[in-house]
Amino acid sequence: MYTLIKKEGRARRGRFHTVHGDFQTPAFMNVATAGAIKGGLSSVDLEDVHCQVMLANTYHLHVRTGEEKIHQLGGIRNLAKWDGPVLTDSGGFQVFSLAKLRNIKEEGVTFNSHVDGRKIFIGPEESIRIQSRLGSTIAMAFDECVQNPAEYDYAARSAERTYRWLVRSKDAMAECNAASDALNPHQLLFGINQGATFEDLRIQHMKEIAKLDCDGYAIGGLAVGEPPEVMYHILDIVEPYAPENKIRYLMGVGTPGNIINAVSLGVDLFDCVMPARNGRHGHLFTMDGILNINNQKYELDERPIDPDCDCPVCRKGFTRAYIHHLVKAKEMLALRLCVMHNLYFYNRLMERIREALDNDRFSAFASEYADRLDQRI
Amino acid sequence: MYTLIKKEGRARRGRFHTVHGDFQTPAFMNVATAGAIKGGLSSVDLEDVHCQVMLANTYHLHVRTGEEKIHQLGGIRNLAKWDGPVLTDSGGFQVFSLAKLRNIKEEGVTFNSHVDGRKIFIGPEESIRIQSRLGSTIAMAFDECVQNPAEYDYAARSAERTYRWLVRSKDAMAECNAASDALNPHQLLFGINQGATFEDLRIQHMKEIAKLDCDGYAIGGLAVGEPPEVMYHILDIVEPYAPENKIRYLMGVGTPGNIINAVSLGVDLFDCVMPARNGRHGHLFTMDGILNINNQKYELDERPIDPDCDCPVCRKGFTRAYIHHLVKAKEMLALRLCVMHNLYFYNRLMERIREALDNDRFSAFASEYADRLDQRI
Repeated sequence: MYTLIKKEGRARRGRFHTVHGDFQTPAFMNVATAGAIKGGLSSVDLEDVHCQVMLANTYHLHVRTGEEKIHQLGGIRNLAKWDGPVLTDSGGFQVFSLAKLRNIKEEGVTFNSHVDGRKIFIGPEESIRIQSRLGSTIAMAFDECVQNPAEYDYAARSAERTYRWLVRSKDAMAECNAASDALNPHQLLFGINQGATFEDLRIQHMKEIAKLDCDGYAIGGLAVGEPPEVMYHILDIVEPYAPENKIRYLMGVGTPGNIINAVSLGVDLFDCVMPARNGRHGHLFTMDGILNINNQKYELDERPIDPDCDCPVCRKGFTRAYIHHLVKAKEMLALRLCVMHNLYFYNRLMERIREALDNDRFSAFASEYADRLDQRI
Repeated sequence: MYTLIKKEGRARRGRFHTVHGDFQTPAFMNVATAGAIKGGLSSVDLEDVHCQVMLANTYHLHVRTGEEKIHQLGGIRNLAKWDGPVLTDSGGFQVFSLAKLRNIKEEGVTFNSHVDGRKIFIGPEESIRIQSRLGSTIAMAFDECVQNPAEYDYAARSAERTYRWLVRSKDAMAECNAASDALNPHQLLFGINQGATFEDLRIQHMKEIAKLDCDGYAIGGLAVGEPPEVMYHILDIVEPYAPENKIRYLMGVGTPGNIINAVSLGVDLFDCVMPARNGRHGHLFTMDGILNINNQKYELDERPIDPDCDCPVCRKGFTRAYIHHLVKAKEMLALRLCVMHNLYFYNRLMERIREALDNDRFSAFASEYADRLDQRI
């Protein structure tokens, strides 16, 4: 349940209550694809990098190890030994981005597993049932994520179908929560707004799903091919139609600047693979911009990644020179240290955003950092 | 400096003093090839797994990032942020195992880098100078490690050359330690016994190097192709000629059973890539033997790797099922958790050996565990 604490412009400072603990918003969820963070991070490390919410991927857990076995093992939270809230996605995005030979019908999607090629069918009921078996805190409704730019007619038909899938997802969630062996009978359901980059479709869709009284509302189908200005414009026009008393989640976004700008437009919740993926490529976030540790100039640089950073990597005093050396020597530790730093940076960024909101200086914070954090040093 | 605390049979309980701190023997050194442990472990993790001594590979650090740069960065201990003792090998073993097209002469060895193929020359003076620049606590003399079975004549000539190289290594070490920019002017030098599997060569060589008053004595050229019984036999016959008041290091050995048996024969110090390498393959050490986490039967096993283990992985409660899942999902975290467990097991094994020696029950400990720990569950 979302509590709006205060606003500055359209930016919202809030709190979200769940049976697995509360989290403060705006918040960034840390992506643990198959119940582990890329770069060799465990739930112990997630605590160290100030993670509030873990995100796990339903599709990946479905194909390996399977939701029934994970149910037997007490669910994803018990499996990964993460005590806090977990959000599972619906699998929809992976079906559309990873799977081959997919076939979309009103019932759902048939596709081939990217692991072993076997045929899989997932519709709203299947997605919700899998997420129920995984025992996450928050389940996402099954939707179709359309790549941008999209054709108007297709986007319209897809958004309508996604609405009908949400109605079915909601019914399925109620049924799963009532089951005697539900790991989390209080599992929450977020609906997802779609409509590609078309204002009328987005607004119409948001108006309709708002009536369904979901536990939260996500904006999907952005950051999938369109320029950032278009993403901001869609956020700008659709936000007034998102229920004020519900949490708002912008899926798969983004850079630190994207996040600051989206908070300015009223978004509360984020997830993105960027901190982990960029970390694995040696691109490290700092309050002065993005540092590329592969650069030769760091070979003898005895400073931590960011001298003002208090992450486990910088705090221990591991230097840019050491990480540069580990990258060159192809040591796995390089990936781990870079991912730890970047995840901490993102979680700490959210803390700074919340502090700024608490002190009525978010607008100044956004002006100072939105562009700066995304620039390369 | 080695202090013999007590003996049980030929097994020795001791302490080794260095300017970078003392360590208790028998001890196992943890291999940080390029200044990082395989599996994504940092010096922070080394403390967590009870590591006393870190071992770094001179050859790897020479080819990447180079000893001069590491010297500028305050040496390998400062680079890896490891406060305790570090032993560097001489590079000799890697020259003979990794490099191609090597050419051995009295001066030293010319070979091609396994990274970029460039020609490198290392002799005793070069090896010691590199190790001095790396600023390790203990340097190893440059030797030739002959693969077993070896030809007698070659082994004899090689052992004689290794003796001459030790004399030169000792002179070089004295010179390096006297240099004004020596990172560790108290760097210690260990000599290495060679002679393949020939009793007379081994004994003759040990007698000669014993006269050189090194800071410690290693037994090299074992566990390189000969059966374990032959290794134990060589240890058995050469041990009486190793100086009683100096530490004894069996290089590159081995299984838990090998270590217990070698301690019984008077060895104080060990190193081996086995805990990390086996861990990366999912072979996990327990006090009941070796568990293969890849096995399907662990899919729903909710016990930790070893219910009696207090390592960071078992203590947190990560289950066999979780690690099995991570292995199947090809998550890097699987490697990290397995390596952490195994390194802790080895370091904890040495603690158990020392406790047994302290309580005059090492013989009983060896009888109970030497075979058991090496068997597959």
